[in-house]
Amino acid sequence: MITSEQELTKETVTLFFQGLQDRICQSLEEADGTGRFREDSWERPGGGGGRSRILAGGSVIEKGGVGFSAVHGEATEATLRALQLMDRTDSALPTFYATGVSIVLHPRNPMVPIIHMNVRYFEMSTGHNWFGGGIDLTPHYVVDKDARWFHQSLKTVCDRHDPAYYTKFKPWADDYFYIPHRQETRGIGGIFFDYLKPTDTAHKADLFAFVQDVGNAFAPIYTHFMKQNRDLPFGEREKDWQLLRRGRYVEFNLVWDRGTKFGLETNGRTESILMSMPPQANWIYDFRTEAGSQEEKTVRQLQKGINWV
Amino acid sequence: MITSEQELTKETVTLFFQGLQDRICQSLEEADGTGRFREDSWERPGGGGGRSRILAGGSVIEKGGVGFSAVHGEATEATLRALQLMDRTDSALPTFYATGVSIVLHPRNPMVPIIHMNVRYFEMSTGHNWFGGGIDLTPHYVVDKDARWFHQSLKTVCDRHDPAYYTKFKPWADDYFYIPHRQETRGIGGIFFDYLKPTDTAHKADLFAFVQDVGNAFAPIYTHFMKQNRDLPFGEREKDWQLLRRGRYVEFNLVWDRGTKFGLETNGRTESILMSMPPQANWIYDFRTEAGSQEEKTVRQLQKGINWV
Repeated sequence: MITSEQELTKETVTLFFQGLQDRICQSLEEADGTGRFREDSWERPGGGGGRSRILAGGSVIEKGGVGFSAVHGEATEATLRALQLMDRTDSALPTFYATGVSIVLHPRNPMVPIIHMNVRYFEMSTGHNWFGGGIDLTPHYVVDKDARWFHQSLKTVCDRHDPAYYTKFKPWADDYFYIPHRQETRGIGGIFFDYLKPTDTAHKADLFAFVQDVGNAFAPIYTHFMKQNRDLPFGEREKDWQLLRRGRYVEFNLVWDRGTKFGLETNGRTESILMSMPPQANWIYDFRTEAGSQEEKTVRQLQKGINWV
Repeated sequence: MITSEQELTKETVTLFFQGLQDRICQSLEEADGTGRFREDSWERPGGGGGRSRILAGGSVIEKGGVGFSAVHGEATEATLRALQLMDRTDSALPTFYATGVSIVLHPRNPMVPIIHMNVRYFEMSTGHNWFGGGIDLTPHYVVDKDARWFHQSLKTVCDRHDPAYYTKFKPWADDYFYIPHRQETRGIGGIFFDYLKPTDTAHKADLFAFVQDVGNAFAPIYTHFMKQNRDLPFGEREKDWQLLRRGRYVEFNLVWDRGTKFGLETNGRTESILMSMPPQANWIYDFRTEAGSQEEKTVRQLQKGINWV
């Protein structure tokens, strides 16, 4: 139990994230049945490193990654711009420490949704420190009952910490996981938060407790969908649709995702950043859904501002 | 024959590009044998429009697009920034006219290379006007003889107009068609040029003649590869490699290609911009080529600065 601001160090946060990666990988392997994660450890030339864990060819998960990293070093001008920290007056570049867990899972069965989760912590030598993160779900076919259950699960986590969190973080996810050039959301959203800094009422330990809760909620939420939907029947039509939806996922990640863009533009570890890519994605010129189809219903629900709870 | 600066209007350039699209589509259909382009005409809300021509499921071309567009309107701040025209002193936004032909073709057989071509013309109400364009080849397997023939064909076109062109435009293509996060070029390059403006020695009609020559060179060059390689044998290994290389093509286009990024970020016509996407692309975490394999040889040749002529 952390009782004061001073005791919550970056080492404590880092250790939690490392353990979280372990526990999530174990839960996912259990739920998958046959798939096993292989680990790829890496070091960052500028300082720190990570453990990328990849599962390919599982019974439920076709391709997925659960990454942990803890990197540090001198913040470049590009980093400071990306972090909106250009107000510093000191001419020397500050040092940073960043640690987190990132997950994207692409299931084999189109009836199982794609999921993404990230929890992260930043600390700057200037004294700034903050948490960020989020979970969002991308069903290939939106099922109202499942969408409600997903959002209610996230709201329950949020409400345990601050009744204002879900109200604030749900629309933030709608805005963040949005594909402007398609005028649609990536999926049914979830929660997204960033620059969560200690205040008079929310101490750093309180914020950490929230982030821990978000991280711990991931495995129960996703294994629920894995177990519930893994054996649902599907045919060629549903598989083809899944491959097109994965194409949109690629478009979002490569064109719009701030984290991906920043990583690729600043010489980050490419394979770990692109762990989010699907095993296969397809494109068809100007594909139109059939009127009245499940595909059309799904696209109609890929909009901001739907209240699922 | 255009004999003076005054006679070369944007209408003349536009008509040439329209005709070029027609002629290229006809040549490609003839070389493909069974594939037929379907046309999708579109209008741009702000002014102008285009004709996207798409061929899917051909004998040689699995998915490809040949697009013509001629758009005009008020230049936004974003457009001016992208065009590096922020030095204007007038506070009113200038109007622009832009026309061009864009092509990307993804062949079925991995032994046939992917190709891209673009020729374009810009005219601003401020009096600025310029040509741009390029052709680059992305073989799934680099074959030295073919790479030399391709570059020699482009050099021959360049040399007819200015002995300095190929020397300047070949390295420009190396720099442009480069994937920094993979530290490799997209393919074996070709030529790339932009902001080609009239000078004392190169009149606008001369520049147009060069751009016409580049446009006219496309069909003979690509149908050569279609005919030569369409029936070369390949197996699962070559097909899998093709799908991974297409993944890199997607990465280049969505993360780095200035035209694609600019189009998607400024509310361009998404389907026409993403006509360049392959029918299918795959990703495998941290794929490594086998020592001594053809795949390894290819990757070693995806570097800037190789002299092919």
